[in-house]
Amino acid sequence: MADELKLHGTWASPFSCRVVWALKLKGIPFEYVEEDLFNKSASLLQYNPVHRKVPVLVHDGKPLCESMIIIEYLDEIWPQNPLLPTNPYDRELARFWVKFVEDKLIPAMAKLFFYSVQEAEKAVKELQEILETMEEHGLGERKFYHADKVGIVEIACASIVYWLQIIQDVIGVKLFESHKFPGLHAWIENFKQVPVIQENLPDRDEMFAYIKARREKFVPSASINA
Amino acid sequence: MADELKLHGTWASPFSCRVVWALKLKGIPFEYVEEDLFNKSASLLQYNPVHRKVPVLVHDGKPLCESMIIIEYLDEIWPQNPLLPTNPYDRELARFWVKFVEDKLIPAMAKLFFYSVQEAEKAVKELQEILETMEEHGLGERKFYHADKVGIVEIACASIVYWLQIIQDVIGVKLFESHKFPGLHAWIENFKQVPVIQENLPDRDEMFAYIKARREKFVPSASINA
Repeated sequence: MADELKLHGTWASPFSCRVVWALKLKGIPFEYVEEDLFNKSASLLQYNPVHRKVPVLVHDGKPLCESMIIIEYLDEIWPQNPLLPTNPYDRELARFWVKFVEDKLIPAMAKLFFYSVQEAEKAVKELQEILETMEEHGLGERKFYHADKVGIVEIACASIVYWLQIIQDVIGVKLFESHKFPGLHAWIENFKQVPVIQENLPDRDEMFAYIKARREKFVPSASINA
Repeated sequence: MADELKLHGTWASPFSCRVVWALKLKGIPFEYVEEDLFNKSASLLQYNPVHRKVPVLVHDGKPLCESMIIIEYLDEIWPQNPLLPTNPYDRELARFWVKFVEDKLIPAMAKLFFYSVQEAEKAVKELQEILETMEEHGLGERKFYHADKVGIVEIACASIVYWLQIIQDVIGVKLFESHKFPGLHAWIENFKQVPVIQENLPDRDEMFAYIKARREKFVPSASINA
């Protein structure tokens, strides 16, 4: 019997996109269920009772949560087009950068999104330091992080950076500029050129409108250019 | 040639202890280098230039950082006494709880440590909700999380909870009490009874004195009982 895979996600979530990309890069067929974050399905709440969040991937009835852990699972079950390096030391390094994105880049991006324009400067400074660390320590030095192929580090990082680029445009701050972060910038662009990614990247203008509307709900005077 | 393993750690760090416990549970011989956090060795800074933190495990000259990622590496290289479940779905669930500890429990514990006594109530409330989630969702339901054996979830979680118990005593708040969290409490106690853990758990009184002194440096009027 073929595996039954159902992904509960939402189009504008970088975390959902990570899982979509991994599934598509591996050529694994799946059913997609678009969730309304303001009216989540009973299934989603039942599948992820701890965080009550997308994405949830349901494999033969068993729910899996947390985008980057789902991707490790996919790599274990469907080894084609591996997303993690096979050598344990290289895996450790890849996981190190995934954790860096989870622990540093995401919380700082969230601050930029939720902070008022007055506070934005603090979030921008923090993000700048994080991006500098990534640039200095060799992310973006090569076309892809490992073995000339798209892998888990690109999926973890580019998903967040793509959103960050749109958030900065919504707010009207200059942060992730190509002359400041030439390696990182080229690396993210390489990733976006991969056909599977290109075909499964949410439309920039739709994302802009979505993020702008969401931010205006949370933050009064949400844009410097407003 | 035997593997050469050198661990740079510090006795009072829960993150160092995690790696010590994993190495000892697996019976892997290693050399231990105690780091002075106020005067870190040049080797440590060179091995972990991104975070400049312990623990760093150096395996045949190659540095590994981030306690929980080091443990996954150890499990891959030395499969004896596995710390992760072998079934991919059970691994996913174990990693889910490890990530929960990293993303929720640790930041909340850090707040309790750094907040003033006046702010401590907020941190206590947040920690209480996190511990309730863990208790409700079945951590502590069984003697050990997986297969009746100490594993990665206990190592991730008990390390932090042991420190939390001492921090709460230093501050003078009641938080992790056995009648409030009977499952979790028994589970952590089971873990502490494992001979290898018992022999490698920092002394409670020394930890108390250490945490009290550290906290007094950061926070004026550091204890409710002061």
